[in-house]
Amino acid sequence: MNYPNGIKKKATSVESTPTSHKNRGMNLEDELNQTNEYYRSIDKAYIYKKPTPIKITKVDYPSRDKTVIKEAFFAVPSTTDYNGIYKGYYIDFEAKETQSKTSFALSNIHPHQIKHLENIVRHKGISFLIVRFTSLNLTYLLRTEDFIDYLDNNERKSIELDYFKQKGYLIKDGYNPRVDYLKIVDQIIGGTK
Amino acid sequence: MNYPNGIKKKATSVESTPTSHKNRGMNLEDELNQTNEYYRSIDKAYIYKKPTPIKITKVDYPSRDKTVIKEAFFAVPSTTDYNGIYKGYYIDFEAKETQSKTSFALSNIHPHQIKHLENIVRHKGISFLIVRFTSLNLTYLLRTEDFIDYLDNNERKSIELDYFKQKGYLIKDGYNPRVDYLKIVDQIIGGTK
Repeated sequence: MNYPNGIKKKATSVESTPTSHKNRGMNLEDELNQTNEYYRSIDKAYIYKKPTPIKITKVDYPSRDKTVIKEAFFAVPSTTDYNGIYKGYYIDFEAKETQSKTSFALSNIHPHQIKHLENIVRHKGISFLIVRFTSLNLTYLLRTEDFIDYLDNNERKSIELDYFKQKGYLIKDGYNPRVDYLKIVDQIIGGTK
Repeated sequence: MNYPNGIKKKATSVESTPTSHKNRGMNLEDELNQTNEYYRSIDKAYIYKKPTPIKITKVDYPSRDKTVIKEAFFAVPSTTDYNGIYKGYYIDFEAKETQSKTSFALSNIHPHQIKHLENIVRHKGISFLIVRFTSLNLTYLLRTEDFIDYLDNNERKSIELDYFKQKGYLIKDGYNPRVDYLKIVDQIIGGTK
């Protein structure tokens, strides 16, 4: 299970280790956060990861100005993890990693997240999945339109890597930004492919 | 201080108490959540409140499938509370209540939230504040453009109610939706006022 970012050990010095993904100790979420920070720093786009939803059940007030949460649980998110604005477009996506070398299990995406991605497309936003096959070091952007098309025409419980190769957009590894997915969004806006 | 929603007592049966704001036991946040839920239910807009950001410092794993947060703290949000999509537009806003009958204290809004609202406007989204003067039962939408204009031309640490009356848009109380702010957004899109 992939626990939310808050409780993972974070890469402390990113700049000094420009080697492979594994060696960097950064996962897709870290790289997307860094990418979005880069986009903001050059005033290109304002896209953020939403905080992980948490259900708080016990709090403590040790002093007047302090609140300590003493018991809480991770809640199921009702939407996707990332959203924001780029060139006036509403952008919305979910990002996932898989260790598999052959397919992406659909159990990774909650049904209400799929519905959410569809809602965004219907209301003229741009929504997609970013899926990384970590063992292969391949990262794809798959548009919601193609994702839904797959779901509508397949009984499988996973999406084959081949489908990503065919319908998805390969996001090449970069240094800064690490995961330059807006380059793909530009193609989508421009209507190429 | 207005603590995040998760630890407040929620109104359990909203439908059965169509009386005044006070008697309903609903605050602005509850009413906006209900309004956004209503918009989603009629497929009008997909706007959500972001989860409250929390910094987790201790977790416990009592069993294989369970994670319990044993210590965490509320973190300062880097953006606004609400965002989403309406008619293809990126929508972003912050909502606040004040007990004051004369002005809205600027200390209610973090400087980076102001910057965020500005960023959205510059990138062709629609952003604004929703401010409720609870004692007066008046709720205003103030566009970021007018909010910034005020900040640029005033040394005060608060915005007078008069400024809301002059530049803001009054959002009339409703039954369902309670706070029909998209009616105002329609005026903004249409370019009236």
